Amino acid sequence: MQNFDFYNPTRIVFGKGKVAELDKLVPANARVLVLIGGQSARHNGTLDEALSALGERYVELFEGIEPNPRYETLVKAVAQVKKGKLDFLLAIGGGSVIDGTKFVAAAACQDNDAWEILLTRGSDVKEAVPYGTILTLPATGSEMNDGSVITREEEKAKLHFSSEHVFPRFSILDPTKSYTLPKRQLANGVVDAFTHTVEQYLTYPVGAMVQDRFAEGLLSTLVEIGPKLLQNPRDYELQANFMWSASLALNGLIGAGVPQDWATHMIGHEITALYGLDHAQTLAVILPNMLSVRRDSKREKLLQYAERIWNIESGTEEERIEAAIRKTREFFESLGMKTRLSEYQIGADAIAGLINKLESHHMVTLGEHRDVDLQVSRKVLEASI
Amino acid sequence: MQNFDFYNPTRIVFGKGKVAELDKLVPANARVLVLIGGQSARHNGTLDEALSALGERYVELFEGIEPNPRYETLVKAVAQVKKGKLDFLLAIGGGSVIDGTKFVAAAACQDNDAWEILLTRGSDVKEAVPYGTILTLPATGSEMNDGSVITREEEKAKLHFSSEHVFPRFSILDPTKSYTLPKRQLANGVVDAFTHTVEQYLTYPVGAMVQDRFAEGLLSTLVEIGPKLLQNPRDYELQANFMWSASLALNGLIGAGVPQDWATHMIGHEITALYGLDHAQTLAVILPNMLSVRRDSKREKLLQYAERIWNIESGTEEERIEAAIRKTREFFESLGMKTRLSEYQIGADAIAGLINKLESHHMVTLGEHRDVDLQVSRKVLEASI
Repeated sequence: MQNFDFYNPTRIVFGKGKVAELDKLVPANARVLVLIGGQSARHNGTLDEALSALGERYVELFEGIEPNPRYETLVKAVAQVKKGKLDFLLAIGGGSVIDGTKFVAAAACQDNDAWEILLTRGSDVKEAVPYGTILTLPATGSEMNDGSVITREEEKAKLHFSSEHVFPRFSILDPTKSYTLPKRQLANGVVDAFTHTVEQYLTYPVGAMVQDRFAEGLLSTLVEIGPKLLQNPRDYELQANFMWSASLALNGLIGAGVPQDWATHMIGHEITALYGLDHAQTLAVILPNMLSVRRDSKREKLLQYAERIWNIESGTEEERIEAAIRKTREFFESLGMKTRLSEYQIGADAIAGLINKLESHHMVTLGEHRDVDLQVSRKVLEASI
Repeated sequence: MQNFDFYNPTRIVFGKGKVAELDKLVPANARVLVLIGGQSARHNGTLDEALSALGERYVELFEGIEPNPRYETLVKAVAQVKKGKLDFLLAIGGGSVIDGTKFVAAAACQDNDAWEILLTRGSDVKEAVPYGTILTLPATGSEMNDGSVITREEEKAKLHFSSEHVFPRFSILDPTKSYTLPKRQLANGVVDAFTHTVEQYLTYPVGAMVQDRFAEGLLSTLVEIGPKLLQNPRDYELQANFMWSASLALNGLIGAGVPQDWATHMIGHEITALYGLDHAQTLAVILPNMLSVRRDSKREKLLQYAERIWNIESGTEEERIEAAIRKTREFFESLGMKTRLSEYQIGADAIAGLINKLESHHMVTLGEHRDVDLQVSRKVLEASI
C-alpha cells in the first residue's frame, strides 16, 4: 500500500425527502445563490422544493450552467455573487452544475483573473464561498469531492482544478431525484462511475487489499444494477445503490494508497472539447482500447479484474484479459453506449488534432507509470476509430 | 437502503514515517497536552518522535490512561488542560487512549459535572478541544470516528458517548507502529475490527449493495490477513491492510443506510466491567453464540455471510448457517482467542449478575429489531459458558 492522505469533510444527507433538511443545513442568515443548469431542476420540482425549504433567506438564482460547464458562463455567476454580497451557494444538478459551482465558490473569493485557478490547478485557492449541493444526476462524484473540470470555449480547453477549500459543506442525495432522467444520462452516469473506479483500480498491484475489495464492490454493483436501472428508473433500491456508488467511486477513498491512471479521462476530455461528445461517451469509447493497448503493464490487475468482476477463470492469461476487455465493452453497449468514434462520425483524420490538443495541454506523460506518451495515446485513438 | 447521514471530517495521514508531519498538522502556536497509556509509546520511540516533531511548541504530558479508560483517571487530565490553558490534545496509543482523549476534549470545555457527558450519551457536548491522534494499536476505529467508551470504576459502569465535536482533526496511521505489539493485542484488534463489521452487516437485508460489498471486503481482508499477521507482525503490507481495515470498520461508512446490531458489544461491555476481560476477548466469546441464538431473525444475512465470506454453498440452510458460525468461531480460535467464558473461569453463576448489570444500564431492547431482551441475552450468556 502506498502512503496517502485522505480527507473528506462533505456531509452526505441521503434519502427520499431529504431536501427538506436544507433549512438546518444552510445558515439561517445566509444570502444564497442557487445555481442550476437547464430546465430540469425547475421541471422536476426540485428548485421549488429547495426554495421552499430555504424559507425567508435572501435567495438569488443563476441559471444556465451547461454540460461541460463553461468559464464564460461561470464568470457571470461570480460577478453576481460579488455584486449581491452572497455568502452561500446551493448547486442543484449533476456534475456540471456542481463543478461549475466549485469554480464560482473559489473565484468569488479572489481578485485575480479567475482563469488562473485553472492554470494553477487550484493550488492558489486559499478560500471559497461555502456551498451545498442537491444531486439530481449521479455520475461524476463531484458532490463528494474537491475536484472540478471547466471548459473555456474560446480556447477549446477543458481543464481540471482541485482544492480542499471547495469540498461541498453538504450534499443531499435523494435517489428519487433521478427517476425522471433520460436513459442517456443514466447510462452516462453508470459508465462514468464505472470508469472512475477503473482508473483507480486497474493499474498495478501494491498490496492494497482493502482498496481493491472496495473498488471491486463498486464495479460489481454497477455491473449488477446498470442494465436493470435503465429498464426500471423508478426502482428506489437501484437508484439508491447507483447514487451512492457514483459518489464513492470518486470521493478519494478507493484511490487512497494506490496508483491511479486517468489517461482515459484525459484523452476523453480532448474529444469532448473538440467534438462535443458527452463525457461518458468518450470514456465508453476510450477505456476498452486503453486497456487493450496497455495490457502488458496492466497484466496482473487485468487478470484480477477478469476473475473478480467477470468470473473469468479459464483460458490463458491472454485469453482471460481479452475476455475481460470484451466484457467491459459489452457492458457499456448493454447500456446503449457506443464504443467506436466512427459511430459518432469521427474518423482517423481527427487523430492529429486530438494529439495536438493533448500536447498543447502537456498531456504527454499520462497513466500510472507516466508512460502514456503521445505515441501511446495515438495507438489508443487509432484503435478507437 | 435506509436513509442516512454520513459525515467524517477526520484527516487520515497514512504511511511509514508520517509522524514527522505533526509539525504541519498541529497549529504552530498550540499549547499541547500529549496523552499516552502505559509505557509502550515511550519504549517504541513514538513519544520521542512526536515530541521532536512538535518542536518549540509548549507541551505537557499526561500518562497512564488504562485499557478501558477510566473516568477517575481522565478527570485529572481535564484538570491539567484547564490549569495549563492547553488548547490542543495529541493522543498516542490505541482505542483506549483515543477514547479517553475524546472525553478529555469534551469535558475540558464544560463546567458541569463531566459524568453528565456519559449520562447524556454526548448530546450536550457543544464544543471540544481540537485534537489529533497517532495510532499505535489498530482495533477500535476510534481514530476515525466520534464515539468513545468510558468506564467509571466506582459504579462498574462502561458507557458510550458520541458527538461530532470529538472527531479527531487528524489521525496518523503508521503501520510500522504496530510491529512490536504483543500477539494478544494484534489478535484482539483483528477480532474487534471483524466484530465491528459484523455488527453493521449481519442483520437483515435492506438492499444496500454497496455497504454489503464494502463490509464483505473488510471481513474477507481480516480473514485473509489475521492469522498471517500474528506470524509476521513486521510485514508492512499485512499491518497496513489491518490498520486501514480497522479504521474503515467503524468510521461510519459501512453502517450508513443499514440496520445495526451491537448487542454483542453491549453484553461484552458488562463482562469487561465485571470481570476485566479485554474488550475483544468478550466479543470472541459472545459473537458466535449471539449469531447462533438469533439465527432465525438473521437468516438471510447469515446465508449471505456463509456464501460470500466462507464460500459455503452446499447443504441445507440450517447446515450452511451452522457452518458459518463454526467458521467464525474457528477463525477467532486460529488467532489464539478463547471462545468460552469457562476458559476464563467464569461459570453459570456469573449470569445473574451480568443480566442485572444489563438491566441497570437499560440494555433491555438490544439488536437491530430491538428484540434482544434480557431473556435473549440470558440465552446467549448460557450458550457462552
